[in-house]
Amino acid sequence: MTLTFASPPQDKAELESGPAFTPRFDEKGLITAVVTDARDGELLMVAHMNAEALSLTLETGFAHYYSRSRDRLWKKGESSGNLQTVREIRTDCDQDAVWLKVSVAGHDATCHTGRRSCFYRTVGVADGEAKVAITDDHRHFDPAQIYAGN
Amino acid sequence: MTLTFASPPQDKAELESGPAFTPRFDEKGLITAVVTDARDGELLMVAHMNAEALSLTLETGFAHYYSRSRDRLWKKGESSGNLQTVREIRTDCDQDAVWLKVSVAGHDATCHTGRRSCFYRTVGVADGEAKVAITDDHRHFDPAQIYAGN
Repeated sequence: MTLTFASPPQDKAELESGPAFTPRFDEKGLITAVVTDARDGELLMVAHMNAEALSLTLETGFAHYYSRSRDRLWKKGESSGNLQTVREIRTDCDQDAVWLKVSVAGHDATCHTGRRSCFYRTVGVADGEAKVAITDDHRHFDPAQIYAGN
Repeated sequence: MTLTFASPPQDKAELESGPAFTPRFDEKGLITAVVTDARDGELLMVAHMNAEALSLTLETGFAHYYSRSRDRLWKKGESSGNLQTVREIRTDCDQDAVWLKVSVAGHDATCHTGRRSCFYRTVGVADGEAKVAITDDHRHFDPAQIYAGN
């Protein structure tokens, strides 16, 4: 990683309007990454990035994240082949989140369950209880086969 | 708040495929909320919700969040009038994020800077440094006027 990030400015106006990208990593060194499909804007996943993942993403053009559950850097698609080529990166007003517009290779699937998007369920209330309902059950690949060696 | 949420199941398959909405709040009691415009899918903001905000959102149909900087529950638009009517809520595979598709009232603006979206800047690299460039500078309202009483 050769690209580094300056510390966020104390001045709010500078953070919101200045020319520098100064991501506000949280106490764990992470920022939130929202990932949509550059093709049609569909929300594919939400993940986290540390400085190394963000730097590698900017330098290579392929999305890298930091896996909190596996506690390691993670090049998206390294197992499944569903690499994400980054078409555009945006940041929000207080620079604690980034938005990646990506093109997905491989099976055109982002979720480890084999679905196109991780957001395959709607949330609702029925009989006073919060429920989910599956709205997309199309599997683009078989997870048992793809992740067999992991 | 009358709606409560059961604890997430230990079983991963149940979490990913079961009928219950069991949000996985982090150690601060928060989950990530991604908010898009139901009209055209534009990403408007990323925020956080605690159980109370999530419950109120499901019960009232208006988006509520938890402000980490102000350390309090927050009905979006309570100052600016830019209320968000929730058209659909989704959750992701491991239920630690929700996606709200909303219709924005008032000025049709979500960012406190007066812009439609908080993601008004692109990120890039120039001369070895990470930079931002403003891609949307249209202000739908004047923040100094709208938030004058706050």
